[in-house]
Amino acid sequence: MNSWINVPQNSDFSIYNLPYGVFIRDEKPTPGVAIGDSIVDLNTAAKVGVFSEIHFDDSVFESDTLNDFIACGKETWSSVRKVLTRELTSENKLYEFREKIMVDRVGAQMVLPVKVGDYTDFYSSIEHATNVGKMFRPNGDPLLPNWRHLPVGYHGRASSIVISGTPLKRPQGQTMPPNADKPVFGPSKRMDIELEMAFIIGKSTKLGEAIPIEEAEDHIFGKVIFNDWSARDLQKWEYVPLGPFLGKNFGSTISPWIVTMEALEPYRCESIKQEPEVLPYLQYSGNKNYDINLEVGLTPENDEETTICESNFKYMYWNMAQQLTHHTVNGCNVNIGDMMASGTISGKEKGSYGSMLELSWSGKEEITLKNGKTRTFIEDNDTITIRAYCEKDGKRIGFGECVGKIIA
Amino acid sequence: MNSWINVPQNSDFSIYNLPYGVFIRDEKPTPGVAIGDSIVDLNTAAKVGVFSEIHFDDSVFESDTLNDFIACGKETWSSVRKVLTRELTSENKLYEFREKIMVDRVGAQMVLPVKVGDYTDFYSSIEHATNVGKMFRPNGDPLLPNWRHLPVGYHGRASSIVISGTPLKRPQGQTMPPNADKPVFGPSKRMDIELEMAFIIGKSTKLGEAIPIEEAEDHIFGKVIFNDWSARDLQKWEYVPLGPFLGKNFGSTISPWIVTMEALEPYRCESIKQEPEVLPYLQYSGNKNYDINLEVGLTPENDEETTICESNFKYMYWNMAQQLTHHTVNGCNVNIGDMMASGTISGKEKGSYGSMLELSWSGKEEITLKNGKTRTFIEDNDTITIRAYCEKDGKRIGFGECVGKIIA
Repeated sequence: MNSWINVPQNSDFSIYNLPYGVFIRDEKPTPGVAIGDSIVDLNTAAKVGVFSEIHFDDSVFESDTLNDFIACGKETWSSVRKVLTRELTSENKLYEFREKIMVDRVGAQMVLPVKVGDYTDFYSSIEHATNVGKMFRPNGDPLLPNWRHLPVGYHGRASSIVISGTPLKRPQGQTMPPNADKPVFGPSKRMDIELEMAFIIGKSTKLGEAIPIEEAEDHIFGKVIFNDWSARDLQKWEYVPLGPFLGKNFGSTISPWIVTMEALEPYRCESIKQEPEVLPYLQYSGNKNYDINLEVGLTPENDEETTICESNFKYMYWNMAQQLTHHTVNGCNVNIGDMMASGTISGKEKGSYGSMLELSWSGKEEITLKNGKTRTFIEDNDTITIRAYCEKDGKRIGFGECVGKIIA
Repeated sequence: MNSWINVPQNSDFSIYNLPYGVFIRDEKPTPGVAIGDSIVDLNTAAKVGVFSEIHFDDSVFESDTLNDFIACGKETWSSVRKVLTRELTSENKLYEFREKIMVDRVGAQMVLPVKVGDYTDFYSSIEHATNVGKMFRPNGDPLLPNWRHLPVGYHGRASSIVISGTPLKRPQGQTMPPNADKPVFGPSKRMDIELEMAFIIGKSTKLGEAIPIEEAEDHIFGKVIFNDWSARDLQKWEYVPLGPFLGKNFGSTISPWIVTMEALEPYRCESIKQEPEVLPYLQYSGNKNYDINLEVGLTPENDEETTICESNFKYMYWNMAQQLTHHTVNGCNVNIGDMMASGTISGKEKGSYGSMLELSWSGKEEITLKNGKTRTFIEDNDTITIRAYCEKDGKRIGFGECVGKIIA
């Protein structure tokens, strides 16, 4: 399938992708779809009648976020995708009005694509949980007793989710130095990343309503890359007994384009076998995981990038359907735009660990960069770039980049 | 001070209170202020010019929530309070248009007064933390090492905060029975309450900005009663290592009227002395706690109410200013409407414990009700009513009731 828009070789934004984002046009946040190095301005496209054959209120594209569009439902998402695929591959109305509708993507300023009501972070990679367990509880079973029975998760801070490219200040806070008798205050000395992906709720539920596992995927609109920045020293001191708080809530970065579940469909794959067998409400059929290549680059100020991690979303022990079903089994309601992150995605090999905590084994082993310098954790002015893409049968779709720089 | 509106003796809603809520009028959520058994419809009052002397856009009262009004700032809150106090105690414009403006409070349907962006729950009562520590870690120090150094807190679920009167279904979920080798699924058998109060953010901050402790109170609009329902058996199995999740997020109930910090001003009192001394960013001057009487009643279906707990907000070890300063010290941003709950407020005596977990000492001691029956945790169709009020120099202000019923 070829588009009349030039799509560079190996672009994340091929005709098979068509991810949704929100960019600034004439100072106004505007919903768009990425294709190659361009964006389809959905509001302008709607105004000239590109979507007139679909039964939905296309003024949802006047909104500052995608929430209203997402609320139109799965059939509408699919119809818009069909129309855009046709319009981008043949010379119809979109082509006719292309000078008004198409916008340069590379220079575009992106903003948060959805209004996030609540954000949940899971802990669903068995390699990550095992690594952390080995470091924090060297004498016990690295996995806690509940870990193989339920997708452990906790609530995070929605207000501090930022779009790729937003610099974040190194957080200050309390830490307890080794062998000290009282805590000290100052900037975090163990700034870390967590390589994650997040899914976005596409269909709300009512309080008291549980989502059966075979319906869970119908409630998911799409996915983004998620960097769950973590200040390990703050986290270590504060997290008992109620979990991570200031060690995490100073910022989380997402990639700007939401890749839809429909686009991801060809990349389904098997999950890791779960042992022991999970309770019936978490048992599923079919392939519920996805083969998504992940990589993390660290770039010191004015220097070249070093790839510090290569992982894959398929390493997840708990899949998204299980996470969402578990999250609502007690009646907890979810809303369109809610974000649910995977937890750090680590593979078996050292080069596939999704956090510097694991890569440097709690600061004991140095990570060597291309410039010869080393890191155990993130230094000021380091930039972290996470990339994610799927490739199969010569077709590629990707998530673009999730970029963040830590400043003093 | 007397109002031309009848205010019953001992009403929570005296002329000294004037709390804000949102009620349904002609099917539309409408901001109002409670006085006695009546409500001042703020939108109608604005339309006839009651607030015309104040420099603010009084169309904020057309909104479905109080967020827009709160965003007008502390001076506006104070001016509106002054005008309402004058108008309710003398026969001016509000009196002239009273038939249009005044609405019956007792029969009014209330809705959530604010749109809550993020909700945080603290753990700031030393008696509660000590009691829980004794039960869960009988052989160690009941307080964990960090507890006296920082106000421990965690993120909760904003979507499931409901208004007083909303019934909640008993949550289902995984629990690990004693001596079992695998978890089971079913309805919670240890349904509990947590007697809390929550404050509502009145002034937003930007990401990266910390609130110095002496400015913290300027960021607080007012307070409500907060029932942090807890399924103890779900919580116990799931909460390690990332904190409470499904044991809490099936619902939290708030009282409908936000009592402003200005109304609470006469009830400031000293806090518990903090030892050891806290880090400088948490040191404060002046009285930063509040003397607010709290009580919890349990009413079985079609039966009379038994008071199961009498406590006081002044028992808090960490005050609201410390909580908010700590929450933002790492740069975490807060938004108008965000809610921050205290954690269970327990006193020293058994009758002042703010949860059934403590009152029944983890189910070992029965709580006897007026009807002769007993409880260790909440049974189906039990209603919990929490009340809160301040009294001093013959003046009383109160929060009304925070009511919730657990259904099967």
